[in-house]
Amino acid sequence: MKIENLGEFGLIDKLNQILPIDDKDVIVGYSDDCACVKVGNDLLLFTVDIQVEGSHFIKEKINPKDLGWKLSTSNVSDIVSCGGKPRWALVSLALPKDLDYEFIKGVYEGIKEAQDYYGFFTIGGNVSSSKQLMIDMSMVGQTDIFVGRDKARVGDFVYISSNLGLSKAGLELILMDKDSYEDFEKKLIEKHYRPKARIDLLENVKKSSSCIDISDGLVSDLGHVSKRSKVKIVIEKEKLPIDNNLKIFCQKYNKDPYQYILYSGEEYELALTSDKDLDLIKIGYIEEGEGVYLKTQEKLEKLDDKGFRHF
Amino acid sequence: MKIENLGEFGLIDKLNQILPIDDKDVIVGYSDDCACVKVGNDLLLFTVDIQVEGSHFIKEKINPKDLGWKLSTSNVSDIVSCGGKPRWALVSLALPKDLDYEFIKGVYEGIKEAQDYYGFFTIGGNVSSSKQLMIDMSMVGQTDIFVGRDKARVGDFVYISSNLGLSKAGLELILMDKDSYEDFEKKLIEKHYRPKARIDLLENVKKSSSCIDISDGLVSDLGHVSKRSKVKIVIEKEKLPIDNNLKIFCQKYNKDPYQYILYSGEEYELALTSDKDLDLIKIGYIEEGEGVYLKTQEKLEKLDDKGFRHF
Ligand SMILES: Nc1ncnc2c1ncn2[C@@H]1O[C@H](COP(=O)(O)OP(=O)(O)O)[C@@H](O)[C@H]1O
Ligand SMILES: Nc1ncnc2c1ncn2[C@@H]1O[C@H](COP(=O)(O)OP(=O)(O)O)[C@@H](O)[C@H]1O
Ligand SMILES: Cc1ncc(C[n+]2csc(CCOP(=O)(O)OP(=O)(O)O)c2C)c(N)n1
Ligand SMILES: Cc1ncc(C[n+]2csc(CCOP(=O)(O)OP(=O)(O)O)c2C)c(N)n1
Repeated sequence: MKIENLGEFGLIDKLNQILPIDDKDVIVGYSDDCACVKVGNDLLLFTVDIQVEGSHFIKEKINPKDLGWKLSTSNVSDIVSCGGKPRWALVSLALPKDLDYEFIKGVYEGIKEAQDYYGFFTIGGNVSSSKQLMIDMSMVGQTDIFVGRDKARVGDFVYISSNLGLSKAGLELILMDKDSYEDFEKKLIEKHYRPKARIDLLENVKKSSSCIDISDGLVSDLGHVSKRSKVKIVIEKEKLPIDNNLKIFCQKYNKDPYQYILYSGEEYELALTSDKDLDLIKIGYIEEGEGVYLKTQEKLEKLDDKGFRHF
Repeated sequence: MKIENLGEFGLIDKLNQILPIDDKDVIVGYSDDCACVKVGNDLLLFTVDIQVEGSHFIKEKINPKDLGWKLSTSNVSDIVSCGGKPRWALVSLALPKDLDYEFIKGVYEGIKEAQDYYGFFTIGGNVSSSKQLMIDMSMVGQTDIFVGRDKARVGDFVYISSNLGLSKAGLELILMDKDSYEDFEKKLIEKHYRPKARIDLLENVKKSSSCIDISDGLVSDLGHVSKRSKVKIVIEKEKLPIDNNLKIFCQKYNKDPYQYILYSGEEYELALTSDKDLDLIKIGYIEEGEGVYLKTQEKLEKLDDKGFRHF
């Protein structure tokens, strides 16, 4: 059986069972954005995210600083979505021997920008040769409280932190390989290459019953919240904001904006649930049941998980 | 300029300068086997090591359990060489979509064996698709005191924890692709595939002025101690033990055993310096000066750093 038959999450499930966690200091193991451990009176968060040539970026197209920034952002986003602040990172490099130094220098300059913006430090790493370029970053964060995926409650509202869909549109534009782009297209491309983890929203995260960052797509990521919290999540279609640049993109290329809003990965925005009134974009609510649904005036439709999967 | 022109350590030096560390909780940053941070009253160690197909193993030859074991051991070895015990790991997988599940299952079974033997738990990870198979493990350890590379003192003795050279001989045998191997050859191959991190020697490590694990080769790794401690290291040739299986290997294949003892990487034994009498193999001493030297009756020869380099 190939791993593509299992699928990404089928694989993770099986592998997690081979390595059961029997450590009283591990507060949260698998199944959330970060693992959480108790060290003395502190709660630490651990996460790891990778950028693989061909899977996450095209080397000839990406500015290496954006690569370093995005690598850092994907990790910080996981830390933030658990209620924490990033502290330290390790950077593991797998590099083809004939790689230009300027490229990896650019990546590190991008990481430096991220360190200055998000407030963490890289304190170590590793170097190996490889055929395919890969950059893996593991990150340690610190938090007062752990905000997970499993405590969304019936009656909670569902919020998102910003307009969604831009990263997927930006990626499509990049892959079109145009000689020039219109201004609105450049903004979408910018969102794909320079997402911002919502470290500015930590206070809101800490008030939430659950929180997840949007890396595979809104529906896919809310699907994890639904499963872990054992609740039904209803997204109200008319409450989903359509970003103006996304709207123009969809008009120009004859696309359905909801395919982007619901399924665009690598947004690194947050989806939160709370019984409180948060100053964020309210898009739905939690009910008894299971699954993620889209509600319009006419119907309530169960949404398939069409989010990004590596396999 | 290509990274192969800089070399592995030239590259690391330049990259470290792009990301200066300005955090009072970081006790040790770059330049040692682990980074070390203060969390409350605890000292935590961080390290990361990777296994890349083609660079660290040949997929068609290796038993995946050995791959998982060796990946874990390389990380534990770094933790132990700083005086600490391993606690938690994250496993980042970059997998070709058509990989057999059985292979990665085997890897995780090897990690499980290592967890049981060394006493750590994997608590999270990541999955990505890739063309080349890579498995990256970052590890967190805990320690009372940090034993580094920079406090070897003139007058200290130099010790190693066991006979060296076996892993390189084992790798050469594996690459010979023989249909069958003699018993002594199987032992050398076993050492290459199943090294043991010397967690049993922690008390000795904590008594040492400096300690490093042997991953690139004795001379290369002692070279780091020499540079960081600003001392000259003298290895006394007649004090270097020649493993019996290595001796037979060298006789059979007409090799010089010292090329293995001095330069074999992936041993995961320890080299320690101490002014105390340790119950380990004393192989030399520390003097004023710099560099790593081999002393025989006839001469004192400065040794070139011919240890393993990725580029
Ligand atoms: N890509 C990297 N970025 C930052 N620091 C690195 C990187 N690679 C290695 N280092 C640091 O350089 C030092 C030497 O690394 P390495 O030779 O891999 O050590 P070891 O053999 O003990 O694992 C370590 O302190 C490590 O943290
Ligand atoms: N290779 C792996 N080994 C063990 N646990 C893993 C692995 N890959 C992912 N996980 C765990 O599965 C959960 C989901 O992972 P992932 O989808 O990467 O989360 P996120 O998108 O938040 O980074 C996380 O808790 C993660 O730690
Ligand atoms: C060349 C290329 N193809 C496709 C994508 C889209 N893409 C790659 S990974 C991904 C999902 C998020 O990445 P992942 O590694 O799964 O991060 P995680 O969910 O673990 O945080 C998306 C949408 C891309 N960025 N670049
Ligand atoms: C196919 C193959 N070729 C060569 C080697 C030998 N080898 C690969 S990496 C290495 C050195 C240690 O690995 P590294 O990734 O540098 O670990 P670190 O020093 O960072 O701990 C050696 C001797 C091997 N194990 N397999």
